[in-house]
Amino acid sequence: MTNWWESIGVTWSSDTGVVEERRVDRSGWAPVGRPAAVLFPRDADEVARVLRGATSARTVVVPRGAGTALTGATTAGEGALVLDLSRMDRIVAIDPDDGTAVVEPGVITADLDRAAGKLGLRYAPDPASFEISTIGGNIATNAGGLRCAKYGVTRDAVLGLEVVLASGERIRTGRSTLKGVSGYDLTGLIVGSEGTLGVVVEATLRLRPLPLSTTTLAATFDDIALAAAAAVALTASGVQPAMAELLDAATLRAIGTRPDAGALLIVQTDAAGEELVAEKVLAETARTVEVSRDPTALLAARRQALPAIERLGRPLIEDIAVPRSRLAEAVRAVERIAARHGVPIFTLSHAADGNLHPIIVADPAATTIPPEVQRAADDIFTLALDLGGTLTGEHGIGTLKRAWLAREIGPVSHDLQRRIKALFDPDNILNPGKAI
Amino acid sequence: MTNWWESIGVTWSSDTGVVEERRVDRSGWAPVGRPAAVLFPRDADEVARVLRGATSARTVVVPRGAGTALTGATTAGEGALVLDLSRMDRIVAIDPDDGTAVVEPGVITADLDRAAGKLGLRYAPDPASFEISTIGGNIATNAGGLRCAKYGVTRDAVLGLEVVLASGERIRTGRSTLKGVSGYDLTGLIVGSEGTLGVVVEATLRLRPLPLSTTTLAATFDDIALAAAAAVALTASGVQPAMAELLDAATLRAIGTRPDAGALLIVQTDAAGEELVAEKVLAETARTVEVSRDPTALLAARRQALPAIERLGRPLIEDIAVPRSRLAEAVRAVERIAARHGVPIFTLSHAADGNLHPIIVADPAATTIPPEVQRAADDIFTLALDLGGTLTGEHGIGTLKRAWLAREIGPVSHDLQRRIKALFDPDNILNPGKAI
Repeated sequence: MTNWWESIGVTWSSDTGVVEERRVDRSGWAPVGRPAAVLFPRDADEVARVLRGATSARTVVVPRGAGTALTGATTAGEGALVLDLSRMDRIVAIDPDDGTAVVEPGVITADLDRAAGKLGLRYAPDPASFEISTIGGNIATNAGGLRCAKYGVTRDAVLGLEVVLASGERIRTGRSTLKGVSGYDLTGLIVGSEGTLGVVVEATLRLRPLPLSTTTLAATFDDIALAAAAAVALTASGVQPAMAELLDAATLRAIGTRPDAGALLIVQTDAAGEELVAEKVLAETARTVEVSRDPTALLAARRQALPAIERLGRPLIEDIAVPRSRLAEAVRAVERIAARHGVPIFTLSHAADGNLHPIIVADPAATTIPPEVQRAADDIFTLALDLGGTLTGEHGIGTLKRAWLAREIGPVSHDLQRRIKALFDPDNILNPGKAI
Repeated sequence: MTNWWESIGVTWSSDTGVVEERRVDRSGWAPVGRPAAVLFPRDADEVARVLRGATSARTVVVPRGAGTALTGATTAGEGALVLDLSRMDRIVAIDPDDGTAVVEPGVITADLDRAAGKLGLRYAPDPASFEISTIGGNIATNAGGLRCAKYGVTRDAVLGLEVVLASGERIRTGRSTLKGVSGYDLTGLIVGSEGTLGVVVEATLRLRPLPLSTTTLAATFDDIALAAAAAVALTASGVQPAMAELLDAATLRAIGTRPDAGALLIVQTDAAGEELVAEKVLAETARTVEVSRDPTALLAARRQALPAIERLGRPLIEDIAVPRSRLAEAVRAVERIAARHGVPIFTLSHAADGNLHPIIVADPAATTIPPEVQRAADDIFTLALDLGGTLTGEHGIGTLKRAWLAREIGPVSHDLQRRIKALFDPDNILNPGKAI
């Protein structure tokens, strides 16, 4: 028997290699069963055809970019169709005068940033995976990154979207202009919804000028609490860091840089008058402060952190955010959680946002999440909520944190979100079981 | 017979003076009929009691801050209850280390900014009415302002909300942290929804450090097209204006400043290296350029513009936004619209955002919108859509632009928005007939 998607003129494959590679994300978690096929649409019409067919046949569709989600957001189980959008990878337009770009969802984040760079602009959000992640995936998860401290996360860079709904109907949300308030904010609703409300087939994005003058400062501290306090002190002094990355001692030892330091704080400033103030504030409590106009060397440690940790085992990357003033407290508590459960935890932090990535490292041979790792992760979630924070600063809920979501947002809000899902996708074909 | 709201323990009034003052906004437009009463809740519990009662009795509720909306968004007709939130005006907390404020909806925008200023911070969004507008009203309309060019509109400053739904149930949306992606973005959905989805009873807002060093430049041009082009050229040179305000010749003559200039462009920069670049770029096409570290004098012209125009007649303030590169074209077209319909139009613009306020001035004796004024407004809306722009950059749809909304967003999106409204407010008691 022929499956319905074989006759709609969209490229597909059910080869085991093709399917296996596209049924998981980087969470290391996979649902049971085998997806039916992977579809490779070339344009919005093909996406619409797939969704119309899926609605008729009640087939589950799991949209996918590069699969760099860390939360199980783009994992596909038995009988599902994977909708691989990576071949819709055209940069349709970049308009430097308007400060906008129009792109298809499969465009690689760093490719857009480089294309904008040739025109003196940049696409600010830079998740750690930006060399391989897609804009569509960034939109699905509302991705953050290092450069989001001052200029915002993916949501802040998305002006408008073209979306195919589960019914196959197409809508445009938002607008092409830098400002606009016509009707409800469907753009914001789609961003971060992990492909559960519709499939983004085009995005109009905001680009910003490359800063004329950036200063990078790298400060070592005896102690991570001092470093976290210094990040807060910067703001109190009027500095608005364009970046503030904190690495703990365990991470520094894993990388092999400043191995005797208690913590490293890397700060970038781009506003007038900030450079000297930032240096002065950091010098008050730091062991050493280096200042450079060329960020490459000072940022190298941060870019090496994840690869270095990955060499030590299988990382479960957590993503809590806390009120900025409680960052030091959170970091200390994570250290206690590591000791209590006997698991190694490395902590990176976007310090200006209060966003922490405690990375729990498990035995590389483990095929499921070991119980002590899960208990440590659960304690980290509890910690985030106890400190007035959130389960996820920039990675999203996916499947791994769904059990915790209702505790954070409450039952009335959770119910409302489920009803919004049902309104957009009454047959529950779009990435069911994710995000909410 | 006693009305239901008289016995729920919430202060109310049906005095004609009290009601008449609170049934209109600054659009100058009023629905027919007389609202039943004005209610003055003191806290979230009282708001919940009102909405529960209104849902039971199917009474229309029109939430209201200071009534500075320009679109008919907070106008109340026959039998409606006006929910005046101006007495819920506590600044609950400002935390400089976290960079956040928690406020009730009735807090005056400028009061919050001043309170933050004492701690070296600011609340960035500054609509023209910020000395009298409330944060709740700003949230309802997603208000913009002069300082939004670089640091964003109200949506960008709102981290989380406490909202009373039509049912009287309360939800918290968003979070207290600077970043977070737990579940769908209900915060974004509420912001700009003009009180049609719920009543905001508390907001957690992002504050930013006051810039350490700001430079203000005021440049006159022979011609407004040259000024608009200069605003675009600034971005092309790598300058990201913190503010870029454009005033046309008619406005300058109304104020009585630089009356022989063709246009005035006021620019603020705060990033390292921008000051000299900005001066150089402006000097290339400007007639004169003044530079100052003290913005007060140079900004005075902009702050005087609206009062000066109001002295000439009754202003209908439009609010289109276009792609930034088409600003000059839009301004020229507005001049032709003024000539065609024989109405005076004064144009102010947040030039960095491509947001124009063509202000059509009508006879002060007119009690309804004169037909030639309406025709000019309609032509301005058509112009915005023809240029790839939007009906409203920062004021919202209200009632005045509802007839145009479907043309901008399309029938499928419009229908989806109506169904979201029905999901939040099945009995259609919350500010019906507004926003969508």
